[in-house]
Amino acid sequence: MINNLLIIGCGLIGSSILRACLKKKVTKNIFVNEKSKLNLKKLKSIKGKFKVTNDLKSIVPRMDLVIICTHLSEYEKIIYKLNKLVTKKIILTDVSSSKKNFIEISKRKLNKNISWISSHPISGSEVSGPEHGSGSLFKNKWCILIKNNNTNNENLKKLSIFWKKLGAKIMIMNAKKHDMIFSLTSHLPHLIAYNLIKTATDFEQKKKYNLINFSAGGLRDFSRIAASNEIMWRDIFFSNSENISKVIDLFIKNLNSFKKDIIKKNNKTIIKKLQDSKKVREKIIRLKQDINKPDFGRN
Amino acid sequence: MINNLLIIGCGLIGSSILRACLKKKVTKNIFVNEKSKLNLKKLKSIKGKFKVTNDLKSIVPRMDLVIICTHLSEYEKIIYKLNKLVTKKIILTDVSSSKKNFIEISKRKLNKNISWISSHPISGSEVSGPEHGSGSLFKNKWCILIKNNNTNNENLKKLSIFWKKLGAKIMIMNAKKHDMIFSLTSHLPHLIAYNLIKTATDFEQKKKYNLINFSAGGLRDFSRIAASNEIMWRDIFFSNSENISKVIDLFIKNLNSFKKDIIKKNNKTIIKKLQDSKKVREKIIRLKQDINKPDFGRN
Repeated sequence: MINNLLIIGCGLIGSSILRACLKKKVTKNIFVNEKSKLNLKKLKSIKGKFKVTNDLKSIVPRMDLVIICTHLSEYEKIIYKLNKLVTKKIILTDVSSSKKNFIEISKRKLNKNISWISSHPISGSEVSGPEHGSGSLFKNKWCILIKNNNTNNENLKKLSIFWKKLGAKIMIMNAKKHDMIFSLTSHLPHLIAYNLIKTATDFEQKKKYNLINFSAGGLRDFSRIAASNEIMWRDIFFSNSENISKVIDLFIKNLNSFKKDIIKKNNKTIIKKLQDSKKVREKIIRLKQDINKPDFGRN
Repeated sequence: MINNLLIIGCGLIGSSILRACLKKKVTKNIFVNEKSKLNLKKLKSIKGKFKVTNDLKSIVPRMDLVIICTHLSEYEKIIYKLNKLVTKKIILTDVSSSKKNFIEISKRKLNKNISWISSHPISGSEVSGPEHGSGSLFKNKWCILIKNNNTNNENLKKLSIFWKKLGAKIMIMNAKKHDMIFSLTSHLPHLIAYNLIKTATDFEQKKKYNLINFSAGGLRDFSRIAASNEIMWRDIFFSNSENISKVIDLFIKNLNSFKKDIIKKNNKTIIKKLQDSKKVREKIIRLKQDINKPDFGRN
């Protein structure tokens, strides 16, 4: 049972955990550590009992669960701070989309009492900040928990129950597999979206055409995820750079092959590629990973 | 005034024109020419007065407007058929997303009475077929009309009024400019989406990972437009291949530069690229080309 919870960093994800815990009465006491004054001001609109604190030294040893929800580039500093304060009974987790930092920091000499089990709730969006948080953000979403040779199974079970109470479905895998999967399902798509918008902007400046007016033909879809938080995505790109670099090469190889098919009018090959894609969409909808409405139901 | 309208090909776009004309009483008589028995069956659920016909020979000369809404690869055959039947008073249009076929066929020896003004309503989606058509499909959407040296201005005006009655906003440009703009705002995004899904499928088969479960991290967005009609998109890719080929090269050049920035951890460059993208999303929303809700409001 998680009685005492500390959330470090209270943006979209941190504030959604806070709201879900308050709504579903998951924990007895919630503490929030947030360094941004703007975010602290925004948190005032959240109803329910929780305490904002800067005093990690006295709070951390009393916790059952500490969740790091800051940007990935701040993890190292935070872990070293927590390293001095953790006791055996504390579960430590984070919510990062890349596990390379977790692997690297974990390898170094840390307090033998530290029990850091990394989490990844698949629930981000293009908006950030506590004003966009929601108590139902994790409902029916996957939450990956990272298990390695040192993982304490009892704590893994406790953490799993915690996320389930927030509405999430649990999948357990190792960090290496996680980073390979998400390099393709999330990191490459974001990079491709950013790159398409960059290419459109370059083209617009060169040709002096107003492209954006006609973005409803497809471009607008990409602009959504290309509007995601720049610090978060810089951190992910830098953290998972090796896997991302490999899938970029795979993507370019396929794109050049597509280009050749188009120039040579390879009818059968093109039709097969386009038909196969449709099956993937059907599978995504069948697995309830997206809604079954044309245009995402937005029109 | 358009009294007599013939729609050739009655899928998503054709049936939406039909529904809008019936709903808004834009025309007096509507004729539909559709070769698919399945589509004809589906059209039976549309209420209102219109006549299905195969007798182009006797119908066409009586028309004020003929709209071709078939796949692009069928245009040539249809134009040669119509070429023998058109009189001076008939406006001929189409709804294609690439104007290369229009340019090429127009250059050949056609009946001097033919007045073919190409249209492009920006209103497609990943679904096709008359069952998905809607009388409000064109509402507040751009419709491009193609003007060249031979365009009859009076007919251009009439056609413009017709689309406006269906709810569309009009933009006039030449075919070359159209194909350059849409190679980037529509054709490249679709190709990129198809290519990303293909890359994910290849990766999945190679690594034996089930990626689709985790597609909510970004991949699912791309799967939507990669589920579009394969005949339509093959035709567009083949038709506008020269422009598409150029923007693929531009895209790959930018992607390689992004990869370099990631590997070298070029902080400032990356942050600038990511921040600039966000501004494009803001502009798209300001221009009402997409809705202003996180996740397209789908969750």
